[in-house]
Amino acid sequence: MTDGKKKEIPETQQHLVVFTPSGLRGHVPNGTSILEAARKFGVDLDSVCGGRGICSRCKVKPAIGTFPKFGMTTTNQCLSPWNDVEEKVNKKKLFKKGQRLGCQTKIIGDVIVDVPSESQIHKQIVRKRAEVRDVLVNPATKLYYVEVSPPNIHNPTGDLQRLKLALEKQWNITDLVISINKIQTIQTLLRKGNWAVTCAIFSQKNSAPEIISIWPGFFESQIYGLAVDLGSTTIAAHLCNLRTGEVIYSTGEMNPQIRFGEDLMSRVSYSMMNIDGAENLKVAVQESLNDLIEKIIQDCKIEAKQLLEITLVCNPVMHHLFLGINPTELGQAPFALATSESLYLNSWEVGLTSLDNCKVYVLPCIAGHVGADAAAVILSETPNTSKENVLIIDVGTNAELILGNEKKVLACSSPTGPAFEGAQISSGQRAAPGAIEKVRINPLTKEPILKVIGCESWSNEPEFSEYIKIQGISGICGSGIIEAVAEMRTAGVLDGSGLIGSEVDTGSVRCISEKRTNSYILYDGTREGRALIKVTNSDVRAIQLAKAALFAGARLLMDEMGIKKVDRIVLAGAFGAHISTKHAMILGMIPDCKLDKVTSAGNAAGTGARIALLNIDAREEISNTVKNITKIETAMEPRFQEYFVSASAIPNSLYEFEELNKIVHLPNINFNKKRRSIRRKAK
Amino acid sequence: MTDGKKKEIPETQQHLVVFTPSGLRGHVPNGTSILEAARKFGVDLDSVCGGRGICSRCKVKPAIGTFPKFGMTTTNQCLSPWNDVEEKVNKKKLFKKGQRLGCQTKIIGDVIVDVPSESQIHKQIVRKRAEVRDVLVNPATKLYYVEVSPPNIHNPTGDLQRLKLALEKQWNITDLVISINKIQTIQTLLRKGNWAVTCAIFSQKNSAPEIISIWPGFFESQIYGLAVDLGSTTIAAHLCNLRTGEVIYSTGEMNPQIRFGEDLMSRVSYSMMNIDGAENLKVAVQESLNDLIEKIIQDCKIEAKQLLEITLVCNPVMHHLFLGINPTELGQAPFALATSESLYLNSWEVGLTSLDNCKVYVLPCIAGHVGADAAAVILSETPNTSKENVLIIDVGTNAELILGNEKKVLACSSPTGPAFEGAQISSGQRAAPGAIEKVRINPLTKEPILKVIGCESWSNEPEFSEYIKIQGISGICGSGIIEAVAEMRTAGVLDGSGLIGSEVDTGSVRCISEKRTNSYILYDGTREGRALIKVTNSDVRAIQLAKAALFAGARLLMDEMGIKKVDRIVLAGAFGAHISTKHAMILGMIPDCKLDKVTSAGNAAGTGARIALLNIDAREEISNTVKNITKIETAMEPRFQEYFVSASAIPNSLYEFEELNKIVHLPNINFNKKRRSIRRKAK
Repeated sequence: MTDGKKKEIPETQQHLVVFTPSGLRGHVPNGTSILEAARKFGVDLDSVCGGRGICSRCKVKPAIGTFPKFGMTTTNQCLSPWNDVEEKVNKKKLFKKGQRLGCQTKIIGDVIVDVPSESQIHKQIVRKRAEVRDVLVNPATKLYYVEVSPPNIHNPTGDLQRLKLALEKQWNITDLVISINKIQTIQTLLRKGNWAVTCAIFSQKNSAPEIISIWPGFFESQIYGLAVDLGSTTIAAHLCNLRTGEVIYSTGEMNPQIRFGEDLMSRVSYSMMNIDGAENLKVAVQESLNDLIEKIIQDCKIEAKQLLEITLVCNPVMHHLFLGINPTELGQAPFALATSESLYLNSWEVGLTSLDNCKVYVLPCIAGHVGADAAAVILSETPNTSKENVLIIDVGTNAELILGNEKKVLACSSPTGPAFEGAQISSGQRAAPGAIEKVRINPLTKEPILKVIGCESWSNEPEFSEYIKIQGISGICGSGIIEAVAEMRTAGVLDGSGLIGSEVDTGSVRCISEKRTNSYILYDGTREGRALIKVTNSDVRAIQLAKAALFAGARLLMDEMGIKKVDRIVLAGAFGAHISTKHAMILGMIPDCKLDKVTSAGNAAGTGARIALLNIDAREEISNTVKNITKIETAMEPRFQEYFVSASAIPNSLYEFEELNKIVHLPNINFNKKRRSIRRKAK
Repeated sequence: MTDGKKKEIPETQQHLVVFTPSGLRGHVPNGTSILEAARKFGVDLDSVCGGRGICSRCKVKPAIGTFPKFGMTTTNQCLSPWNDVEEKVNKKKLFKKGQRLGCQTKIIGDVIVDVPSESQIHKQIVRKRAEVRDVLVNPATKLYYVEVSPPNIHNPTGDLQRLKLALEKQWNITDLVISINKIQTIQTLLRKGNWAVTCAIFSQKNSAPEIISIWPGFFESQIYGLAVDLGSTTIAAHLCNLRTGEVIYSTGEMNPQIRFGEDLMSRVSYSMMNIDGAENLKVAVQESLNDLIEKIIQDCKIEAKQLLEITLVCNPVMHHLFLGINPTELGQAPFALATSESLYLNSWEVGLTSLDNCKVYVLPCIAGHVGADAAAVILSETPNTSKENVLIIDVGTNAELILGNEKKVLACSSPTGPAFEGAQISSGQRAAPGAIEKVRINPLTKEPILKVIGCESWSNEPEFSEYIKIQGISGICGSGIIEAVAEMRTAGVLDGSGLIGSEVDTGSVRCISEKRTNSYILYDGTREGRALIKVTNSDVRAIQLAKAALFAGARLLMDEMGIKKVDRIVLAGAFGAHISTKHAMILGMIPDCKLDKVTSAGNAAGTGARIALLNIDAREEISNTVKNITKIETAMEPRFQEYFVSASAIPNSLYEFEELNKIVHLPNINFNKKRRSIRRKAK
């Protein structure tokens, strides 16, 4: 802990030490190390080796000069000279200019010591968007280096007991638990490390800390965690350094459960109708995640035992399927979850056989329709700390809606169906190369220009035809159909009730009549033997139903909150990242809001998973937040049906669209010759 | 909880209620149920259903008559009349005469209520021997019946959360944990039980209580635990009812590890010399215990999920092998245990795949040579609470010695080798039918009479020859060789140094000379084509070495305790149960002690395992006791070698044998013609 020179320094004198940037300060006896002083005053200074000069984590920069702010003048004479340990660190070029090792440098005069961010235990991850909080890195699992007494024939306690004693004496960690598979390795590791080991210890509130990994001697490398977003369609994973919080690697793959059913309810049906249904679905997703983890370990060149934590977010059906719980109850009222609280699991309990002793944290589910993914979105977007009323919309097969402010958070799920994902649309497809993702229609000519995934150019640019020759246009994805319908409306091809005009109504040859309805041709590749992509009136109807459901859900929440207007809208998820907020507002998908207050949060669920991974307090926070959320069950609210019907017009008739009217003119047209409006149908 | 009639009874009046045999008493309002009153005054009255009239566990017997002791006269009028629930119980013939259901019977006058032992939660198991404590049944796992709120669409907490809430409200159990495999079953069980289930909850100090088994509705049957003594040679198991403490079934089988090495050290060698050595040994013993459990479940017609706890005792090598820990360190100084403290494990962690969610408790090891079996012996024999100095001797391949009183407990292991088990003896064999187990030699004729395992008669009785015709005599077991050597000594066939006399020395034709040593013929079956069983001078030497080691260990402990004489000797283990204490004392195996103070404890290790199974406090007690034991490492004590050499005489020369001299005369003879005495050899 201290070198032999300590005795030579008189300890009677006291010196002032000021730490920056924290400003923490106090007096210490002559000869105290900077690390000791930092611990005394609660300064956030990292150390894995406990001050033995091994880990080089406690690098600090003493400030030399005159500092009027502190009324101090400091010189190199205020600190002990470099010792052998620091010479070694210097030779390895581990010091930045002016740096010292906190554990080796003794205070022998008044000093100011700067703790660089790299040397802080609790690193801060600053996020780009101003409205969301930064993330403090304070993971559940940390590394501790310890030196253990060798066995003594006259005091025959076990090696484990001496390791525990060392952790208690050197790190003040008590009541440790350890699994039998780790106990099996202790003797070899202690001897290999010459009676020193580095332990990864997992701590969570209300539970005994656990030794989950052990390395012989001082472990030079890093430990990692994986934030997983287990979607119905894709499984996304982000590997993070548990010390720095840095995202090392992000990857994903398709959810293999798709072969049992594209949408969740068909997977629920599969598990209801087949004896091993739920088991098959469980195995499929667990194996797939396991494969993904193996790939990550391989790609990132880390060892399985370095990956020590996983946080998992998903919707309730995926939650149950992943955990091997039959999801039948989620397919019928009252949509009872088997368990709603967050879960701490071990990797082997959920089939992650490629990992050694990894801890899996599953975020809490909010309700039978509003899952851990929505909880993660809340953790990322923090509506619960917002002074404004924030509406968060996460669109998938169902839309999850969260409306909140610092006083109250509401949540519901709206049965939008899969139209927003391009399903149930005549030319619909997944967002993949060849899919139309953006559409603009000239109000005068009614001619469209398109943008296709995989091509940087619009269809009126020369590069586009080159692309088309190779790839072709195969369909229209979710964001594309929304833009198409919205543009059709603003271009006067579609009326407020959702009817597409005929060629006569609109003067456009693109409007064709088939049977008793009209369609609008977006792209005709038939002459080149390619697809004919049109928007049919059924497609428009499907979008109308979906957006009416979405809007009705939002409206219910606003009623419950007692507000007529939201201050801010956050579009979460992959869909939210690609959707044009203007077009969404034209459609009447989302409530009226200043356009610059409508933001896309990207993969907010994944970010929430990452926050829970990096900060242990966030786990408790989200559990408490979820408990206090008011859950609205749309299926049970009589007004939902009413709002749903009223919201089918484009834009819907439920609402003043002040903000929308500032940016767009919606033509007042009515193609009511063949009165088959959705509105009547819906009634 | 209470029936509808409660309202009709005026609650203003207070009545005195006295419970017997506890004597607990107090006043309760008119109309209070006997169960409620019992809870109020801390009376030990069982109930699994929480007072719903389902479990019939709270049967009590109100005392009717005049009781001068309490100054009370009671009549049937002091209690509410039988209700429907009691009528049903009566129809099922579950009541003994005069019994009532505590939860259904209301107190409407002063009463005396007797709680029969069957209705007490904490049953007392009275043990036969006066010097050992009785066992209070207070297991870690108990049953709780709960009624759970059905799911509510407006308050979408999970089924698990509502179950936890019910357990908190109805039983005051908080912070429950539950494994994922149990969570998977909750929804089905709650619905099957119509929103009522019976939970088996496992609680131990310093750890959250855990739901380890769930049954739909009220579970009528019993839960069980298994006390396992994992010996080097045999695995013994006792199935106990966790409510009554009763032993339902005892069984055992050979330890299959014998194929890897008869004695422990050869198993340690096997695991050192083979890459998968320790793994193979682990699998062998785990599979064997698993098979044994399957057999018990089948034989006792119980379900795997009713077997909820296992306690395990074993020596340190078996401890490590069973747990999958390489035992190499136990084969060399300083004999470091991987872990010495007690362990809580789950059955699947130790390969017990036939069980559902069973908790395995492994008792603590005392030292590298003194295992959890010795700890269990202490738990059974309680030297730590004795006012006298008690020496406990557990003889196996090594002997474990414990010397203790209420102030101090000492323990050591002595390297007796396997001679006491009949190994390394020319005609030695395991204790099995055909083995000589008892020997008497007439001092005048020098003729022996024998008793053989499997035959009730001595060899001088007529029935014996009938037996011999069928079974034959195949060898001599551990207790047999001890008696043989001791009887040879008292009959004057053997001298104090351990030399067998020749035919000339002894005048007996049974003493034959071979090469340069003599043997004594115990049984000559050669004329009938059967075995010749003799005691050679090598056999005597092997016994001398073993008993000298045992005695030297005891002497070391007595030195450490500062005593010259022990007050009481307990012989533990199967060997201890069969050995003749008189002969053991003649040999000088055990220190001098009044013969009536030398008792056999039978399978004390198994009893200790059973105590730990039935009483949760005993687990903490033994952990604390073990921590405070002074461990003596015989191999490191210079005096051990000295005592060992001095103790090889028969009886040894180290000690006054006052008590022994009262009961036996040891002839003063010396066959020192061919001076090859052990004493000189040992020097």
